Amino acid sequence: MNQIKGRQSTKFEKDVYILGCASVVGQKEGEGPLGDNFDKVVKDPMFGKKSWEEAESEMQAIAARLVLEKCQIKADDIRMVFAGDLLAQSIASCFGLVDLNRPLYGLFGACSTIGEAISLGAMAVAGGYANHVLSMTSSHFASVEKEFRFPLAYGNQKPPSSSWTVTGSGACVISSEKSNVKITGITSGKIVDFGLKDSQNMGACMAPAAADTISQNMADFDRNPGDYDRIITGDLGKIGREILIELMKQKGYDIRDNYLDCGMLIFDSNTQDTNAGGSGCGCAATVLASTLIPKLESGEWQRILFVPTGALMSKVSFFEGQSVPGIAQGVVLEYVGKEK
Amino acid sequence: MNQIKGRQSTKFEKDVYILGCASVVGQKEGEGPLGDNFDKVVKDPMFGKKSWEEAESEMQAIAARLVLEKCQIKADDIRMVFAGDLLAQSIASCFGLVDLNRPLYGLFGACSTIGEAISLGAMAVAGGYANHVLSMTSSHFASVEKEFRFPLAYGNQKPPSSSWTVTGSGACVISSEKSNVKITGITSGKIVDFGLKDSQNMGACMAPAAADTISQNMADFDRNPGDYDRIITGDLGKIGREILIELMKQKGYDIRDNYLDCGMLIFDSNTQDTNAGGSGCGCAATVLASTLIPKLESGEWQRILFVPTGALMSKVSFFEGQSVPGIAQGVVLEYVGKEK
Repeated sequence: MNQIKGRQSTKFEKDVYILGCASVVGQKEGEGPLGDNFDKVVKDPMFGKKSWEEAESEMQAIAARLVLEKCQIKADDIRMVFAGDLLAQSIASCFGLVDLNRPLYGLFGACSTIGEAISLGAMAVAGGYANHVLSMTSSHFASVEKEFRFPLAYGNQKPPSSSWTVTGSGACVISSEKSNVKITGITSGKIVDFGLKDSQNMGACMAPAAADTISQNMADFDRNPGDYDRIITGDLGKIGREILIELMKQKGYDIRDNYLDCGMLIFDSNTQDTNAGGSGCGCAATVLASTLIPKLESGEWQRILFVPTGALMSKVSFFEGQSVPGIAQGVVLEYVGKEK
Repeated sequence: MNQIKGRQSTKFEKDVYILGCASVVGQKEGEGPLGDNFDKVVKDPMFGKKSWEEAESEMQAIAARLVLEKCQIKADDIRMVFAGDLLAQSIASCFGLVDLNRPLYGLFGACSTIGEAISLGAMAVAGGYANHVLSMTSSHFASVEKEFRFPLAYGNQKPPSSSWTVTGSGACVISSEKSNVKITGITSGKIVDFGLKDSQNMGACMAPAAADTISQNMADFDRNPGDYDRIITGDLGKIGREILIELMKQKGYDIRDNYLDCGMLIFDSNTQDTNAGGSGCGCAATVLASTLIPKLESGEWQRILFVPTGALMSKVSFFEGQSVPGIAQGVVLEYVGKEK
């Protein structure tokens, strides 16, 4: 059985690998601490297009082409695409992926979307429904400011708890073909609502969901934090990080020593004015593709728990006074170089 | 192998069933031709809540509770939920399903979402990742008018090609437990863009995607239209219907005799002033749950091809002059009463 009885996690019995990854980011991300790791840094924030939304779509198209190239496969080899983004009705993905001409399952998991895309992609491959699938997401600073916040020209000041949306698209080919990195399990995330309403402090809104998924992963797989080289959340940022560490301590797990957050890795908040850290679907996806997977490919890390986090809200839900629930999707990735 | 080589379809090798369904609709749907078939007709369009969005969430919560009751299972028996809706950032699902407290994979496939939810749910069950999953969607006339069109109080007139969004939520439990209705295959849909830009004629925008998925299904499974008791699209309506029949003829298939469209079944457009027909994620989902599945359960139909259709667009993509691409997800459902 693939499912772990009575729990929320799946242990894949059939082998499923990350065949390759690609990352495309904007200038600011290229100037950050991980700048050298990205496959492509595009200085033009419009990506040669006429609107922010088209720019984001173009970024997805570039990332998709790039990952196919790196994996030396053709679009036709992709059986299904799992993709989504933060824009209303997922238009970045819909318009970005139309030319790929492959079957699409559109997703929405807010900034946890790459975790959802990898989870479903791994299920599809391990279930024998596909040899190769493409799992990808994107976000663009300007399209997201327009979608959720204020017009850029308004020059709105942001509180220190706010995050900076990453301009980036990350894509992975998940495959039955062997590579050095195996997806060995997933922990499917629940919506967790602590009733917080501050959309400028999404780290705090998402931390309870991250704690829920991580502790569930430990229980389901009978592991401790030390069984992972790193536990890596999506975009909790500085404040969410501290809350997560505290919540995990209350659940009996000390993760302080091996815990990282993609939102804190991608920018240097001291010099890049990004407040609590990076966020957006593209944050976890580009950090995974550029930095985390290579460390697994080389064997520097043996096993990580990757936990992209999402804040579930819209302009409308915010204006109607709703809370901002969180969700976090867990993926266990392992180095299996020796198997090859 | 589950996948049909070089094609877009999956034939499930392991048994996967629709254990039960539930449908909740509004007053207008209750007054339509299928009125007696729905499990619950709620006359209050606010569903006892303060906003249209909360009303839609409440409708999902009711549908979820109802299907669990009908299947005589508990929420804890559901391993994963696959759900989505038409609102920006899927807030109807996010807020409607939080109290269910089960792992969620959020989807966006516009009005094709129930097809996507059933496809992924069937993959999860057939892959051994779950014994029971919940696949569901919703739409609400007023929340969707607000999201995509005009304020209700404006009293905007609609062209004859426009559709009327169904207020309804449909939910299915997909299961490894035997029932009379089996999901035997799926055809994963591609985005198809004929460049049409009229969001008030979504039937025309979606018909090419429906033709693509249906003809692909015929090719992949080596079937003809006559091999299905009915081929049933989601919400093409009067105009889309004629286009689909013509496009299929061009591809060498005559579907006129056994073709139905959920959007044309749910309302009587002559007396209910619904123009081209019903639409919305709730349209295909409630017609499936209330009318199509019962005909398979009883053996009146032996095999159908259910093809929910989606128009991929947002307010922003429309205002930026983008086209309205379509997508259609195919699901093959069969009566297997004798197996029981």
